[in-house]
Amino acid sequence: MPTIKVAILGFGTVGEGIYRILQERKEAIQKETGYTIDVHSILVRNKGKVRLTIPGTKVTDDVQEILSNPEIDVVFEAIVGEEPAYTYLSEAIEKGCHVITANKAMFAKHGPALLKHAQFRDVKVCYEATTAGGVPIIRTISSLLPADRVRRIRGVLNGTSNFILTKMREEGISFEAALREAQARGFAEADPTDDVGGMDAFRKLMILSTLAFGKQPDWQDVPIVGIDQLTIPDIADASKGNLRYRHVANITIEADGTLRGSVGPVLIEPGHQLYGVDGVDNAVIVDTEHLGALTLIGPGAGMYPTASAMVGDLLQIIGKRETVALTS
Amino acid sequence: MPTIKVAILGFGTVGEGIYRILQERKEAIQKETGYTIDVHSILVRNKGKVRLTIPGTKVTDDVQEILSNPEIDVVFEAIVGEEPAYTYLSEAIEKGCHVITANKAMFAKHGPALLKHAQFRDVKVCYEATTAGGVPIIRTISSLLPADRVRRIRGVLNGTSNFILTKMREEGISFEAALREAQARGFAEADPTDDVGGMDAFRKLMILSTLAFGKQPDWQDVPIVGIDQLTIPDIADASKGNLRYRHVANITIEADGTLRGSVGPVLIEPGHQLYGVDGVDNAVIVDTEHLGALTLIGPGAGMYPTASAMVGDLLQIIGKRETVALTS
Repeated sequence: MPTIKVAILGFGTVGEGIYRILQERKEAIQKETGYTIDVHSILVRNKGKVRLTIPGTKVTDDVQEILSNPEIDVVFEAIVGEEPAYTYLSEAIEKGCHVITANKAMFAKHGPALLKHAQFRDVKVCYEATTAGGVPIIRTISSLLPADRVRRIRGVLNGTSNFILTKMREEGISFEAALREAQARGFAEADPTDDVGGMDAFRKLMILSTLAFGKQPDWQDVPIVGIDQLTIPDIADASKGNLRYRHVANITIEADGTLRGSVGPVLIEPGHQLYGVDGVDNAVIVDTEHLGALTLIGPGAGMYPTASAMVGDLLQIIGKRETVALTS
Repeated sequence: MPTIKVAILGFGTVGEGIYRILQERKEAIQKETGYTIDVHSILVRNKGKVRLTIPGTKVTDDVQEILSNPEIDVVFEAIVGEEPAYTYLSEAIEKGCHVITANKAMFAKHGPALLKHAQFRDVKVCYEATTAGGVPIIRTISSLLPADRVRRIRGVLNGTSNFILTKMREEGISFEAALREAQARGFAEADPTDDVGGMDAFRKLMILSTLAFGKQPDWQDVPIVGIDQLTIPDIADASKGNLRYRHVANITIEADGTLRGSVGPVLIEPGHQLYGVDGVDNAVIVDTEHLGALTLIGPGAGMYPTASAMVGDLLQIIGKRETVALTS
């Protein structure tokens, strides 16, 4: 059976999740695709800290051992931050590898360049896990295009903010107290600025904009408001009116092609698709010309949702190899 | 540029929608896929009744003119009822055509046989439009497998029933009055038995069962309850408690592999993902091992949603031709 050799850059929760799913589902993937997936190498920061025993896989802290190996077909990238992730993926593409990333900060900024580069090298760049965690929004929008036209995308794209808003409403606690709970439960970083200030949701919105509209608005033209200004009375007032605050990222294309984006708290009424999106869930509503409104709701983060989105990307890359007979 | 020749069987609203989308999006599809789509033939019941002028396309009432033509690559089937649709698609597959169907009554029963047949002939059977209209649930579940395992699927799968329940709640009218309005607005058939009795939702559930679990439960083991027994007081009582009736189709796989299905009205509370699914919308919640719960909500019917789902199927078939370089 033909083998596909993959490397995993970064072995935190997501990287480990990818490894685990590829092991657990090895036979199912063989049966379905005809390929054996071989995790050839894993890049770690500290070789002493690897928790799993990994037979048959090279564990290294030198990225060049991976990038200079012509046997690697696909690189999974599960590192945090723009660099060195962007440089690693550029090199991988240059070497003819397909790449799969979960890195939203890197991809919001460098995604267009990586996609262009990949086109020249005839490889794929997959990024389902960058946006809305386990919600397959990239694949869904990709498959709607080119038979349809997207007009608007809006959604709850940051699970941390949504968890905090949910806690504030359900328990009547302050933003600060809810944030501390999110941090204690591992849903928020030690520095939560990007999450609660709206920058993380903004970045995901830009990734969706590139996908759906082929371009991004000027970043400075998009107003970004976080949830950090919302007070206990704000939330209580909303609840009295049976409303809920959601942190909504929104982008619309106007008739002349202008993009209008915004990120900030919005009051939502019962019966609206975003009303029931509580906790760390994410949601995206896509308005299109032919389909009308399509809503997707699911887990916004977590080891398995993110990792399974990335394994799903791998299966898409493999699936493309299959050829079908078209007579003409 | 290479050309893909397609035939459309049936030229009602859906068939016409397919034709229109393929014309409108011709250049976008060429640009994205590298293929020109040529609508080679259309099968109609009555040649005198065709509304559109269709230059360059053969309009025929003889299916053999289509099925015996070796040039046809893909057959779209937009006919109602099990037969002759099943026979036509069997013949098309036997001739080596890919087929795309929107026919749920036919596919619930004959889908497993058609899929098997297609495997032997190395062609594709696509059926996104059979289930939940424009909601891409088939593609979404397909792409979750084989990296994940589905545990449960539940949803609102019949737009007519959901429209009637919505009208009864919002306007306080009887089932009969709401049904008449659905019929007047074209959302219900002259004989609405399959919709309001639950059979239509059941069939879609069986299609999802085959996809997600590789099998269906014995049909007679699945209790099917329609919405036709719900009275004005039932709905009013629910509303007093801030609840809404939804007609929910549900299937679960137990640890020993047994499938348990049910179809019937269920009371839903605010904050539940199905609470806001009003009118002719459909919704599906998929529970999986790795992802948790994923919800999709969108238009359950309509010319463009159904037709654009079928054109999306065509793009999936074309996309598969693309080969990517895997070094090993």
